[in-house]
Amino acid sequence: MKTVITYGTFDLFHIGHVNLLKRARSLGDRLVVAVSTDEFNERKSKISLVPYEHRAAIVESCRYVDLVIPENDWTQKKIDIVTHNVDFFVIGDDWKGKFDDLSEYCEVVYLERTENISSTAMREAILVFTQLGKDLI
Amino acid sequence: MKTVITYGTFDLFHIGHVNLLKRARSLGDRLVVAVSTDEFNERKSKISLVPYEHRAAIVESCRYVDLVIPENDWTQKKIDIVTHNVDFFVIGDDWKGKFDDLSEYCEVVYLERTENISSTAMREAILVFTQLGKDLI
Repeated sequence: MKTVITYGTFDLFHIGHVNLLKRARSLGDRLVVAVSTDEFNERKSKISLVPYEHRAAIVESCRYVDLVIPENDWTQKKIDIVTHNVDFFVIGDDWKGKFDDLSEYCEVVYLERTENISSTAMREAILVFTQLGKDLI
Repeated sequence: MKTVITYGTFDLFHIGHVNLLKRARSLGDRLVVAVSTDEFNERKSKISLVPYEHRAAIVESCRYVDLVIPENDWTQKKIDIVTHNVDFFVIGDDWKGKFDDLSEYCEVVYLERTENISSTAMREAILVFTQLGKDLI
């Protein structure tokens, strides 16, 4: 039984999230996803559009996900890896090299992001569409 | 084996979508979801932010969904109900009464929508956040 873990905010759930979760799950038999809480985001001077409870429930509803846990702190990764018997720590390659220190505890895998898709890109697209006066559903 | 069907655009996948899919699936043993194509939306003078291929893949990744089919036309519902041996046609109660004619073919169920959540509300929230200059993730 190989366990995979990944971390993220998962705001405005999009195809990039689905692709990452699917590929992360395919590396093992069980996928744990740590979703950053609103309080943790606030400490990072970030805010998500969708509240934690909704983001966690949406990720939990994804067929590739076995367990959702809250991410409350920068330092919890090592504890999570031990607690959940993690074999693979997976994250998007925009973080390449940033989590190499975790390779002491498990294999660290940087997955290629889906091109042109991010929560930021989605928000920007919404703005452009609105400015164009499109009748969005 | 009871089959449930529902229809929608599923733009900006949110907790209201998850709740509806979960409750729809709980009415039977198999859930078919018809996702409206971009061409069909265009004929209705609507446009979604997320393209059909992504919307369909996101809905397909939901653990409550067994099959995704495209919705191309207003008239296909009766054919879908027969083709997929549907027992329950499910839709949000903002459409209450609008699909009563389908009760000739199967049971028609209007499900209560999740309060204060819709793709429109999400787009509006994004605009407000952006105007406030919040540092969204």
